[in-house]
Amino acid sequence: MSEPKLPTRAEDFNEWYNQLVIRAELADYAPVRGCMIVRPYGWALWENIQASLDRRFKATGHLNAAFPLLIPKSFLEREASHVEGFSPELAVVTIGGNKELEEPLVVRPTSETVIGHAYAKWIQSYRDLPVLINQWCSVVRWELRTKLFLRTLEFFWQEGHTAHATFAEAEEETRRMLDVYADFAMNEAALPVIPGIKSESERFAGADRTYSIEAMMGDGKALQSGTSHNLGQNFAKAFDIQFLDRDGERKFCWTTSWGLSTRIVGAIIMVHGDDQGLILPPRLAPFQAVIVPIHKNDDERAQVMEVVAGAQRELAAAGIRVKVDARDGLTPGFKFNDWEMRGVPLRIEVGPKDVAKRTVALARRDRPGKEGKTLVSRDGLAAVASATLDDIQAALLAKATAFRDANIRDVATYDAFKEAIEIGFARAWWAGDAALEQRIKEETKATLRCIPLDQPGGTGPCFMTGRPAATQAIFARAY
Amino acid sequence: MSEPKLPTRAEDFNEWYNQLVIRAELADYAPVRGCMIVRPYGWALWENIQASLDRRFKATGHLNAAFPLLIPKSFLEREASHVEGFSPELAVVTIGGNKELEEPLVVRPTSETVIGHAYAKWIQSYRDLPVLINQWCSVVRWELRTKLFLRTLEFFWQEGHTAHATFAEAEEETRRMLDVYADFAMNEAALPVIPGIKSESERFAGADRTYSIEAMMGDGKALQSGTSHNLGQNFAKAFDIQFLDRDGERKFCWTTSWGLSTRIVGAIIMVHGDDQGLILPPRLAPFQAVIVPIHKNDDERAQVMEVVAGAQRELAAAGIRVKVDARDGLTPGFKFNDWEMRGVPLRIEVGPKDVAKRTVALARRDRPGKEGKTLVSRDGLAAVASATLDDIQAALLAKATAFRDANIRDVATYDAFKEAIEIGFARAWWAGDAALEQRIKEETKATLRCIPLDQPGGTGPCFMTGRPAATQAIFARAY
Repeated sequence: MSEPKLPTRAEDFNEWYNQLVIRAELADYAPVRGCMIVRPYGWALWENIQASLDRRFKATGHLNAAFPLLIPKSFLEREASHVEGFSPELAVVTIGGNKELEEPLVVRPTSETVIGHAYAKWIQSYRDLPVLINQWCSVVRWELRTKLFLRTLEFFWQEGHTAHATFAEAEEETRRMLDVYADFAMNEAALPVIPGIKSESERFAGADRTYSIEAMMGDGKALQSGTSHNLGQNFAKAFDIQFLDRDGERKFCWTTSWGLSTRIVGAIIMVHGDDQGLILPPRLAPFQAVIVPIHKNDDERAQVMEVVAGAQRELAAAGIRVKVDARDGLTPGFKFNDWEMRGVPLRIEVGPKDVAKRTVALARRDRPGKEGKTLVSRDGLAAVASATLDDIQAALLAKATAFRDANIRDVATYDAFKEAIEIGFARAWWAGDAALEQRIKEETKATLRCIPLDQPGGTGPCFMTGRPAATQAIFARAY
Repeated sequence: MSEPKLPTRAEDFNEWYNQLVIRAELADYAPVRGCMIVRPYGWALWENIQASLDRRFKATGHLNAAFPLLIPKSFLEREASHVEGFSPELAVVTIGGNKELEEPLVVRPTSETVIGHAYAKWIQSYRDLPVLINQWCSVVRWELRTKLFLRTLEFFWQEGHTAHATFAEAEEETRRMLDVYADFAMNEAALPVIPGIKSESERFAGADRTYSIEAMMGDGKALQSGTSHNLGQNFAKAFDIQFLDRDGERKFCWTTSWGLSTRIVGAIIMVHGDDQGLILPPRLAPFQAVIVPIHKNDDERAQVMEVVAGAQRELAAAGIRVKVDARDGLTPGFKFNDWEMRGVPLRIEVGPKDVAKRTVALARRDRPGKEGKTLVSRDGLAAVASATLDDIQAALLAKATAFRDANIRDVATYDAFKEAIEIGFARAWWAGDAALEQRIKEETKATLRCIPLDQPGGTGPCFMTGRPAATQAIFARAY
């Protein structure tokens, strides 16, 4: 009945991840190489991520819309660095309705171009600004090496696209959305991210500035978990997005874009998961609690199921997303393992003894074994469960933060840097350029993840050039 | 300041529709022929449609998931009638990552094939059944004649795909989802639809039975507004979806699919709209009420805006989606026209006299001019607004039902039939076949919309063949 265990994270982090995604039924491979099916359990997680981000987008004045999937190939060519960045990754439709198309169409890899075209039409005057629009969709990028959730040919995301009257407003928007992402990551996904600005070589193709939130995975590698771009007037000029300003002059708009994708699911897996499987932050978990009834005969079953039904009602009434696992023919032990694999934060066991004593057993997913299991009274169960879920949410963030901080090393030399990136992140004073970044990448596989917004102040000698540097940078190997 | 009026519906229904969609900012044309941009106001309407359908899907046990956009072309060829139906409409990706693909990929026109492939992998035993999954996405069909919302190359929809152990269960599911669509249409969109079964020639490519809900538009034409298909074992055999039954035998599953798309927005426009523009059913309207402040100077403005802010808070607290139109530099008359164009069900006007008398003016969108305008007390405004919105919702359904019923004619001869379809629907005893349907279509442009589930019983002579018929059918010209 019991399935083989996952490889441990220490043994083979990569294989642990791949097997977990499949066995927790988060996603599956599609028939087309590198494409992904997001299964109902994974999609329910993504729906919770969507809901909590969407609430934040709307609270900051954004509206959703839908722009087309198919974009004339020539559109991408209007912005030089944009086409340079994306042309190797395009999926191209050349046939429609059994006929060769006059102009090939690309399946959107991102929508700055087609949205820029619409904005040029919609925006006439300063009165029309700012335009603050987001869309939830999928995009296609022809990636060669793929991994479920982290890098797939098609992935699901949101992309915000805004237009403003001034550089300052666009920059403010870019930073605001970075803050939204950081807030979401910390408070919903329990991911302690580092917000920062990208170096020139890691910028989005077509952006003047790219900001990102960077998270440390359980193996010490970095994952870029959301990006926000100040596009300057690059796309406004390429697509002629102009407005008549208060002073009577026609000016180009300043635009931004920002995106967060199903990659974040990969981050949640790799930050919180353990050797038993997934551990989901309660605020995003499709099921926050699972009730497993335990009984040996019909008599016990009837008594237990009555208590289970009552507990389910109570928890649901308290706003807890609860699932009862009443599957026949499976042992409680099998069910425990199954829900541990799927990362449900709280397990509630109800057996015949519990019926008699008006108790239930609560098992916390974040504290495996006996340590996380307590016997609690049936009376007031919902309040205890709610408080425990809050505690799990906080504990996951605290644990991930402690892990991250223990694995960031401040380094002053290239040797120390090389040691640091074997373990986690290297933080160092930095005054290098793109060529030096490239050399470091070739020699160590580490990249400049970001220049954190939070800086110590003052200056220090660059760990590579020795030149005085005003900022520190974070380097790591990355997914 | 004021824009030219729409053409009236009587003058040019088609042009009335096209202009309304653009001027109400529901949608816009995309740069690629036949593609659509759904603008924020249109998308907010679609989000409300999605939410009320999704609630119903989940209440009937369905889960959401996401299947890939790109499907190997060979997949479609596995089901003979499916490929025959869809191959003229395919968009084909032949290049990926700058290389010619070995096998061309189609952009999904619908997902029975790729989902069938996944189900074959996931389903092993009767314990795994039923599988009840839905996805919200867009699909691409290379249509030649397009019209915003009604027929576009890319459109937005949901597609449910289920697998069952028996024919009876699949048929029950097919009918259940038809009922869900009919319930949604009547109770949310205020569309009095006719649920029925399609004739063989109007069936979905690959289905054994296709059911639909048919609505009558304001010009008497029909619009198929949602379909539910019993796919029999056709896709199960094509994709080898088998399960081990309780009796130890391996059997093919029985599958269904069902879909409702952004066409329904077209139905809402064409059923409820009037010569002033859109009229939205309150349950789906992005804004259920708009408050327009009226003032001539700063003094008046301050007093009026204080009352407006209070009214806004009250309405929002009562769960009413309310918008305040405080735009500068536009006259109240302009704003009235603008929100009438956009179909907001209830307008609330607040002027200096209202401040003094503690009143506001309520104007119902469904009763233009003086008739729909009443002066009500500020006290208890939210309760009056809620009741009025309920009343508007009911009135829209009643009006559309009366219109539909007045424009369905029972006909016994082909001559009467031809007259009936000039006005609306023709209902007749029917014992004809596909060839006869084809002849009628060629001669009159009318198609057999459905054989309604609700039948009078008994028999009658077929209006074309004179043979005794057990069922009546509905014919109409259709969008």
